[in-house]
Amino acid sequence: MKKNKLIELITKIFINHKLNKKHAIICAEALVNAELVDAPSHGLSRLKMYCDRINKKLINPKPKIKIKKISQSITHIDANNSIGFVAADIGIKEAVKNAKKTGFGLVGIKNSGHYGLSGYYAEQAVKKNLTALVFTNAPPAIAPHGALKTLFGTNPICFGTPTSSKIPFILDSSVSMINRGKIRVAARTGKKIPAGVALDKFGNPTTSAKKALEGVQLPIASFRGSGFAWMVDILSGVLTGGNHGGRVKDPFDDFTGPQNIGHLFIVMKSNIFVRNYNQRIKENIKRIKRLPKIKGVKEILYPGQNKYIRYKKNYNNEIRISKDVRKDLELLIS
Amino acid sequence: MKKNKLIELITKIFINHKLNKKHAIICAEALVNAELVDAPSHGLSRLKMYCDRINKKLINPKPKIKIKKISQSITHIDANNSIGFVAADIGIKEAVKNAKKTGFGLVGIKNSGHYGLSGYYAEQAVKKNLTALVFTNAPPAIAPHGALKTLFGTNPICFGTPTSSKIPFILDSSVSMINRGKIRVAARTGKKIPAGVALDKFGNPTTSAKKALEGVQLPIASFRGSGFAWMVDILSGVLTGGNHGGRVKDPFDDFTGPQNIGHLFIVMKSNIFVRNYNQRIKENIKRIKRLPKIKGVKEILYPGQNKYIRYKKNYNNEIRISKDVRKDLELLIS
Repeated sequence: MKKNKLIELITKIFINHKLNKKHAIICAEALVNAELVDAPSHGLSRLKMYCDRINKKLINPKPKIKIKKISQSITHIDANNSIGFVAADIGIKEAVKNAKKTGFGLVGIKNSGHYGLSGYYAEQAVKKNLTALVFTNAPPAIAPHGALKTLFGTNPICFGTPTSSKIPFILDSSVSMINRGKIRVAARTGKKIPAGVALDKFGNPTTSAKKALEGVQLPIASFRGSGFAWMVDILSGVLTGGNHGGRVKDPFDDFTGPQNIGHLFIVMKSNIFVRNYNQRIKENIKRIKRLPKIKGVKEILYPGQNKYIRYKKNYNNEIRISKDVRKDLELLIS
Repeated sequence: MKKNKLIELITKIFINHKLNKKHAIICAEALVNAELVDAPSHGLSRLKMYCDRINKKLINPKPKIKIKKISQSITHIDANNSIGFVAADIGIKEAVKNAKKTGFGLVGIKNSGHYGLSGYYAEQAVKKNLTALVFTNAPPAIAPHGALKTLFGTNPICFGTPTSSKIPFILDSSVSMINRGKIRVAARTGKKIPAGVALDKFGNPTTSAKKALEGVQLPIASFRGSGFAWMVDILSGVLTGGNHGGRVKDPFDDFTGPQNIGHLFIVMKSNIFVRNYNQRIKENIKRIKRLPKIKGVKEILYPGQNKYIRYKKNYNNEIRISKDVRKDLELLIS
């Protein structure tokens, strides 16, 4: 389906689910963007889940979002169980505004939900020539180091900065060996997952996506990855007033209450300390790209470059829609 | 040797190397602290290197440190090639002051040097009930993903926050599989390093510490670790005006100029968004510690707990001094 037609369709679906038009467009654009960057795990495969949660009154389609200005730089947002996209859209815009005005913006959000890709929000700051750190927690997927039970989410660490080229530097790395959404897609399509990324519920290694979803995902780098996940849980959950410590509900499986996810946006002017930031980052990337390469590697890519290439490639093409998603769309539009 | 006697001795050595008394004490305390937390790679084994660099005028023992206030929250420091400990001490104190006053402190430092353990500075903020992110770059040790040559430092990600107990949460994790200092100590003592953490200069796996130092250290989690290292290089180097992109000189091997390392401190009030932060973090840690444990694990520890246990254990004992370090001390005091 063509990109614009798809955005229109999803917008309609969200409006049918009581979102106002502005909020519906924000959600539709975020979901289609995930498809365009080849992250279908954060795209249309989640649409039905969002609608289900609205129907069950776990996502508030008409949220009264409270924006509390703590200072010219710092804002606290109570998203009133809005859909995550809407809360994050308001949050990143607020952080950008604060940073533009004072050099620095800090925004904490509570009572939000799954907002898609962290990199999508970092990108919005980078487009304004700002540098951003973006944190969110997520439902239990990773066992803390030493534990036999999942508790941390895949809790990404996300960082974006301008590069002086049109392709921004966007690092958006979950601290699990594999993205939970990818396992979910594999489970839906009956595909295997790589070895070494997950254990089944008995603690044994598995390549079955279904068994992995019941079991434990492994963090990157053992205790280090566990520590990073814990840090992100504190920054985005404990600090902001969001859920934390394993209390963020799985949006697909747990309909006993809203998610109350927390997000934290740290945004700063890229030229806050130096006048020639653009020149410096350009030089930084140039030096790294000039290094001798491993056999078979044509170019050393910075984080975000690959995604941009995929985005460009997909931008003018039809978006492929899986059978499952097509079924969801038909159901939701009717 | 007793802790206090050792601090006195090192202070004397630094004063003999033209540091003023205040700066000499800052350095001595940081080095002894590294020994107390069982991180000898960041302790006395570096003392001679610092003195050599002072003698060769690559570290400035009488720096004119410029503290430029950009706003009540933001400070830029030009450390004038001071020893890293002194620059970082001023920097974290400034960040703490800014955060106490405005809720948030951002401090960028350029023209600094190796400052020891990032966690040491995060701890200082946490003692004031603040939450901190600390970044520094370091000399080339890790190859960027796809490259055959080292460029990134071991570039730690460091995060600290109060826990409502006397043991702070201090995550201080290099993004290399192993700390470069540990390889250095292994090389000095003729010990092997674990498999899978480094390649020799030809790109082959090695467990020889000497060969690893000539070769390439592996980042954690492949391209993800490479991305984290790149992020830290940008945050602490490109942004602050420090060296970056592989230009930070190895303090042991490269005497062709000062290091000009950059540091970035991001500090905020822990209760900036919530009134009951202490209660929330306590609850967070409690929930995680309650999880079922892997066989053989007695307690799930949060980052910083192990270090604190080591510190307490070592605090009243004599500090063991290796033969090499004893030789250094005798040479330097004479």
